[in-house]
Amino acid sequence: MIVPAEEARNLATRVLRLHGAPEAHAQLQVDLLLEAELRGFASHGLLRLPRIVERIRNGVADPAAIGSPEWILPGFLRIDGQMGLGPVIALKALDEICEHARQVGVAVAAIHNSNHLGMLAWYAERVAEADQIALCFSTSEALVHPWGGREAMIGTNPIAIGIPARPFPFVMDMATSLVAMGKIHDYANRGEAIPDQWALDRNGEPTTDPEAAKSGAIAPFGGAKGYALGLAFELLVSALARSALGKSVQGTLDSTNVCNKGDVFIVLSPGTDSGCNNELSRYLDAIRNCAPIEGFSSVSIPGDRSRMCRAERLKSGICLPDDVWRELQALANWENHQGGL
Amino acid sequence: MIVPAEEARNLATRVLRLHGAPEAHAQLQVDLLLEAELRGFASHGLLRLPRIVERIRNGVADPAAIGSPEWILPGFLRIDGQMGLGPVIALKALDEICEHARQVGVAVAAIHNSNHLGMLAWYAERVAEADQIALCFSTSEALVHPWGGREAMIGTNPIAIGIPARPFPFVMDMATSLVAMGKIHDYANRGEAIPDQWALDRNGEPTTDPEAAKSGAIAPFGGAKGYALGLAFELLVSALARSALGKSVQGTLDSTNVCNKGDVFIVLSPGTDSGCNNELSRYLDAIRNCAPIEGFSSVSIPGDRSRMCRAERLKSGICLPDDVWRELQALANWENHQGGL
Repeated sequence: MIVPAEEARNLATRVLRLHGAPEAHAQLQVDLLLEAELRGFASHGLLRLPRIVERIRNGVADPAAIGSPEWILPGFLRIDGQMGLGPVIALKALDEICEHARQVGVAVAAIHNSNHLGMLAWYAERVAEADQIALCFSTSEALVHPWGGREAMIGTNPIAIGIPARPFPFVMDMATSLVAMGKIHDYANRGEAIPDQWALDRNGEPTTDPEAAKSGAIAPFGGAKGYALGLAFELLVSALARSALGKSVQGTLDSTNVCNKGDVFIVLSPGTDSGCNNELSRYLDAIRNCAPIEGFSSVSIPGDRSRMCRAERLKSGICLPDDVWRELQALANWENHQGGL
Repeated sequence: MIVPAEEARNLATRVLRLHGAPEAHAQLQVDLLLEAELRGFASHGLLRLPRIVERIRNGVADPAAIGSPEWILPGFLRIDGQMGLGPVIALKALDEICEHARQVGVAVAAIHNSNHLGMLAWYAERVAEADQIALCFSTSEALVHPWGGREAMIGTNPIAIGIPARPFPFVMDMATSLVAMGKIHDYANRGEAIPDQWALDRNGEPTTDPEAAKSGAIAPFGGAKGYALGLAFELLVSALARSALGKSVQGTLDSTNVCNKGDVFIVLSPGTDSGCNNELSRYLDAIRNCAPIEGFSSVSIPGDRSRMCRAERLKSGICLPDDVWRELQALANWENHQGGL
């Protein structure tokens, strides 16, 4: 079904308010989920809200927590997220290191004990819009097999990079897995075979059966190189945030475990020089104007398509599966149900 | 032919000394090239030395330059490389930011007007061996086409990441192109067709002819994701180092142009906690012990194979094409030839 964005925002905010989130925290969390819907990334959208609510109910997410940041070195902010909502803890940390980076050129935040960050582009864009550069990393449950290996041992470990440009910043955001596990679930729901090379089954054999892939392992993107990158990000985040590694990671896909992945932000401020940005913006436009090969109508810069999608959906509404919308409505009426028990 | 590493080191050092490099500079540059040979990366090895010498002779590389570093902000070191040798300028900058990062947690160096860095792993490993974390970036001439585009507009933009681990650090180093241009030259030399999908010809049409690919464009690794990464690194380096972008980049493949690419190092120090490294090292071993899929004898961690290769070649010598060795010998006798003119 199609829902106006503001209607979805109000309903989702009400759900979180009912489950103990202060107004500001509810707004941040919902804005993050809604921005994912608007940009066409449903896997990071409102379907995540019921899981967040379950985690609050189970005591493994604290919607009121604001985290405990500590500058362990003058340029290194370590944050115990106190089981808070991912975007609440992260934005607080990000704002602090952005301010610091503006003074000294660079600062890093390493977050542990915080919940799922959601779409990393949301953070990278915020930094780039303020004329700073962001490198954002997060780890996840082990869903990806090492190159040549049979077993899922590495997270889908996304990276986002935000860089100031005109008329809008450059923002790229990608997982280091070949596909999202959500996409494999989509194929399973539709009863379709997944392409070769996407995944292994639980025995480490290649499979085109999405049901078998769900309990197996996804391939890294880009073969050995993507494997090397995803692994490097896992180690980088763990070394900086002292978060769990590989199969020990839990709490972003389940409703019962304290989340022990880590998040890292590096913010850089190269000083003020808009001339540089002008050249960079012209370069991006030159790439957009590159003649396309057969099968492409044009060349895109990362972020272009989600920006167009956003503009369209702000007008026409977001597209939600019926059951997700019904579940949100039920959660928003939870109080009444509770009263009826 | 097989040459003992020390013999190659002496000859190459002599070549650079004869062309005006101070002893320490010659040693650094040669160590970098020789380490690439030892690890099996001939494309970044001694075959690069004649090009370096030509650049010195043409006045676009200054082997005596030490660069002009300036802390433009307390955590941000900007370096004018003064057309110096890549490793000479970079190591000086790296040592400075490593010292700073040890005090404050993170520091960044952005280098312009410096020559080719060579194998980035050399830098990342040095940092990781000193128990710090390194992110290394460099740009290059535009050899890679944007995803869906016909023309080479993006550098092969490598990244290297070094992270402390036991018994040796984790070091990954990769270009964001699907293959190195050197590999396409190899195919051309052997008269073999290159695989589908590797490259486009000068008109932007897919080709399996390596000669046609040489004047065309290489694909990004990993499709749209690798394109997004390579482009992000191009922008990141340019925004920080104020270096040239896309087709404007020159001076790492030719002998006549001042090199205008950029290099960026970010060094992070998460404080001292060897416990973290122990866990990380155990994780790496667990991945090495992952059961391999068919066609693989074992699972490797990035850097494992080059480490084995290095140990073997330190014993048995490095493998050089005859003409490269002859060229180095001729360059080492340049003085005599000059005298004879």
